[in-house]
Amino acid sequence: MEAATEHLTYGEAEGDFSAVDKVRVIEALGRILPPGSLMYDTEDLRPYECDGLAAYRALPLVVALPSTEEQVVAVLRSCHELGVPVVARGAGTGLSGGALPHTRGVLLSLARFNRILHLDPLARLAVVQPGVRNLAISEAAAPYGLYYAPDPSSQIACTIGGNVAENAGGVHCLKYGLTVHNLLRVRGVTIEGEIIDIGGHGPDCAGYDLLALLTGSEGMLAVVTEVSVKLVPRPQFAQCVLAAFDDVVRAGDAVARIIAAGIIPAGLEMMDQPATAAVEEFVHAGYPLDAKAILLCEADGTAEEVAEEVARVCRVLEDSGATELRVSRDEAERLRFWAGRKAAFPAAGRISPDYYCMDGTIPRKRVGEMLTAIQQMEERYRLRCMNVFHAGDGNLHPLILFDANQADEFERAEAFGAEILELSVALGGTITGEHGVGLEKINQMCVQFSPAEVRQFFRVKAAFDPPGLLNPGKAIPTLNRCAEYGRMRVSRDHVPYPDIPRF
Amino acid sequence: MEAATEHLTYGEAEGDFSAVDKVRVIEALGRILPPGSLMYDTEDLRPYECDGLAAYRALPLVVALPSTEEQVVAVLRSCHELGVPVVARGAGTGLSGGALPHTRGVLLSLARFNRILHLDPLARLAVVQPGVRNLAISEAAAPYGLYYAPDPSSQIACTIGGNVAENAGGVHCLKYGLTVHNLLRVRGVTIEGEIIDIGGHGPDCAGYDLLALLTGSEGMLAVVTEVSVKLVPRPQFAQCVLAAFDDVVRAGDAVARIIAAGIIPAGLEMMDQPATAAVEEFVHAGYPLDAKAILLCEADGTAEEVAEEVARVCRVLEDSGATELRVSRDEAERLRFWAGRKAAFPAAGRISPDYYCMDGTIPRKRVGEMLTAIQQMEERYRLRCMNVFHAGDGNLHPLILFDANQADEFERAEAFGAEILELSVALGGTITGEHGVGLEKINQMCVQFSPAEVRQFFRVKAAFDPPGLLNPGKAIPTLNRCAEYGRMRVSRDHVPYPDIPRF
Repeated sequence: MEAATEHLTYGEAEGDFSAVDKVRVIEALGRILPPGSLMYDTEDLRPYECDGLAAYRALPLVVALPSTEEQVVAVLRSCHELGVPVVARGAGTGLSGGALPHTRGVLLSLARFNRILHLDPLARLAVVQPGVRNLAISEAAAPYGLYYAPDPSSQIACTIGGNVAENAGGVHCLKYGLTVHNLLRVRGVTIEGEIIDIGGHGPDCAGYDLLALLTGSEGMLAVVTEVSVKLVPRPQFAQCVLAAFDDVVRAGDAVARIIAAGIIPAGLEMMDQPATAAVEEFVHAGYPLDAKAILLCEADGTAEEVAEEVARVCRVLEDSGATELRVSRDEAERLRFWAGRKAAFPAAGRISPDYYCMDGTIPRKRVGEMLTAIQQMEERYRLRCMNVFHAGDGNLHPLILFDANQADEFERAEAFGAEILELSVALGGTITGEHGVGLEKINQMCVQFSPAEVRQFFRVKAAFDPPGLLNPGKAIPTLNRCAEYGRMRVSRDHVPYPDIPRF
Repeated sequence: MEAATEHLTYGEAEGDFSAVDKVRVIEALGRILPPGSLMYDTEDLRPYECDGLAAYRALPLVVALPSTEEQVVAVLRSCHELGVPVVARGAGTGLSGGALPHTRGVLLSLARFNRILHLDPLARLAVVQPGVRNLAISEAAAPYGLYYAPDPSSQIACTIGGNVAENAGGVHCLKYGLTVHNLLRVRGVTIEGEIIDIGGHGPDCAGYDLLALLTGSEGMLAVVTEVSVKLVPRPQFAQCVLAAFDDVVRAGDAVARIIAAGIIPAGLEMMDQPATAAVEEFVHAGYPLDAKAILLCEADGTAEEVAEEVARVCRVLEDSGATELRVSRDEAERLRFWAGRKAAFPAAGRISPDYYCMDGTIPRKRVGEMLTAIQQMEERYRLRCMNVFHAGDGNLHPLILFDANQADEFERAEAFGAEILELSVALGGTITGEHGVGLEKINQMCVQFSPAEVRQFFRVKAAFDPPGLLNPGKAIPTLNRCAEYGRMRVSRDHVPYPDIPRF
């Protein structure tokens, strides 16, 4: 959500933390951190009051900027002793409010952990600090013909620590996997100040898979201080196919058919007509404006592999009823095809005062059903929606357009988004594809999970953080909150929209 | 270990379980299970006394054979009430003792959960019960041109539930991933009888990644009752390259160079001369007997992709000093190349009364160092070792040959194996690649992990199973046990063999 004027404060209602004197926290952390590493004046706290989900804002008690792991250990131990909540933060580009500060807590910035510690081209891995930017890893690996595959659209700014916290995705995740699939080892510190070093540089690791558990845990289990990532060879060649369809459902079915044919494209994206029109006006990518939906399908590899895959993709697209097919003739055209897709969010910002980006995921074959349902919701909520999808993954990014200055438009946008997420669950999908739950989707957790499952999440949380001080109130709802929200999955077969078959 | 005569009993020393009367357990479970689902006579218990690690044996109190999830829930609730340990078991083919019964506990067989519930070729997934055999999934998917990729060598017999418990691997895991990478959803029951349904049919799922956490948890967190697996298209074509080397270190380096070149073969296996000689005598695969080591490297995909990859692999192998290269000319020859590799374990059984198969994993570039060290260990322990590797993964399967009827040979084999595992950790690897820790490698867990990490494992265990009744004494050592073993990693930089650089 961009430039929303409705600023909700957050932090009071969740948890049960003693009202620790701000002065005591400043004193305690001041003994640990060197000068210039602790901020507490309101004007200094302001830049940290929200992340990419700017509709929710809160000021922390203090901001701590440690620069060594020893300092992180000491800060966490101190907060544990004082019973003060801690919210870790990378670049603050997250879209679900995961890094929103706690009003009674410490905002722990990892910005100074910005060094690449080790890069091994033969073993194809890099060991980096959590504050290193996603793109900086690929830049450091470029001289060896390697790169780090997950590419969230914020990759120029977002940090690997935040990527780990949210299990970030991106266009290339269809072929190359989410963050969790591209990690080898993570080192972190628990709220009690214990260092845990999990995973390894081999394919499997002994013990419970805490590496996967920490990935996507939104800073609620430990604070990450070091990350080993896999590097993959940069493909020699890539080509992009643009396909037009005169029907969105047919475009959705084409996506399912490409994957069912055993093709795993390097990217497989879909945009509907409102999205195409908005970006075309903005960046002139050359998209066909009369198409109800377009698909972008990228092949990468050696020239022979690309030629073979492009031919197969074109056959499937033709059989699926594409009305037009264009294959990028050179690198400039390929980049132009993608420029439109990448400009979708700013384009939405140009045609609407505000927009709300959702992130549900559904089985690919249900894409058509979802699009039809969203069209009906547009009428019911009296709001327009542009649809941009990581279609190959079934990961939807509907952009709900609204104007926060108009009476109740924000509330309608929120309700619209909630209905999309709950329909995602009903279609056999999930409420998040790559942005995390954070604060934004916490009510929908009640719809996706049963009380037994939510309790199990809390027990896992307590296994790492018994007093519940790390990022409290995010990602996992209390059962009380679910009761207030008035919906809870009570069994596997109890889902919203009971008339929709689950498989 | 095959036909070892040293039978160790297990279960007395671990845990602190009240000596529940066998009769009370039989009464309680008899009320839950239908006739013919409960066994308690010693002769009926005998088939369950060990898994594939036959050196360790123990009889359970009773064997329960439920056939519905409701019965599993009731059995677990009853055991929870009585304080009785529960060990779940699939086909019992595991190689690390993970399914070894507890002498005071219930052996819970999932053998009757043998139905494929749902197969969706378009979404490329199958929903199956845990007792379904690994190969049966691929057989059911074959009419659609699909298969389930992970292929442990026991795949004709082992079950998907056991694969989940041990995070099983196989020859094709280099390209297609371990079990954890091929799962979508797992349904399980906790010791308290709560059903948890985790993961989903989309690429990511909200909440902590309990799916990865359960995978490889060796039946210690929950009992699995349903599994959704990914299916992948069967490759149109495959070809295998056999390369001979006059030096094992050079062969090891060739493996690292293939992967560093950005090639991910469908299989990349290595055998040393003793292994080659043993299998050649057995199955006449046509291996060059004068080579110090051979590599088998498989390419799969379309005919064009395979031709391109085989050409690249051959170039790297030539540059790496291969003395001979053969490319399989037809399917019969390809299968003959693999027949030798697949016969390695039975071939060891033909030339030695007993053998002990290890399962450490090391970074690929350290393979040469490991092989040199194993040669030195052979002299020190006065035992021969055949080396068979999933080389592409860095996953070692040294087969230590011994005769359990000769004084102290079993002890020397155990010590030899332990040294290989501890050297794996020192080389930056891990003590298990695909067989799990079970009972076999529990001491080496102390070498790989610090006390803080072991404590964290126990806390995760307690988050699912507070009384510690599910498969007690496996996979995670108590700190007491580590103290007795006399070794414990105290920090990340404290590793055995301190003179070996870690990265």
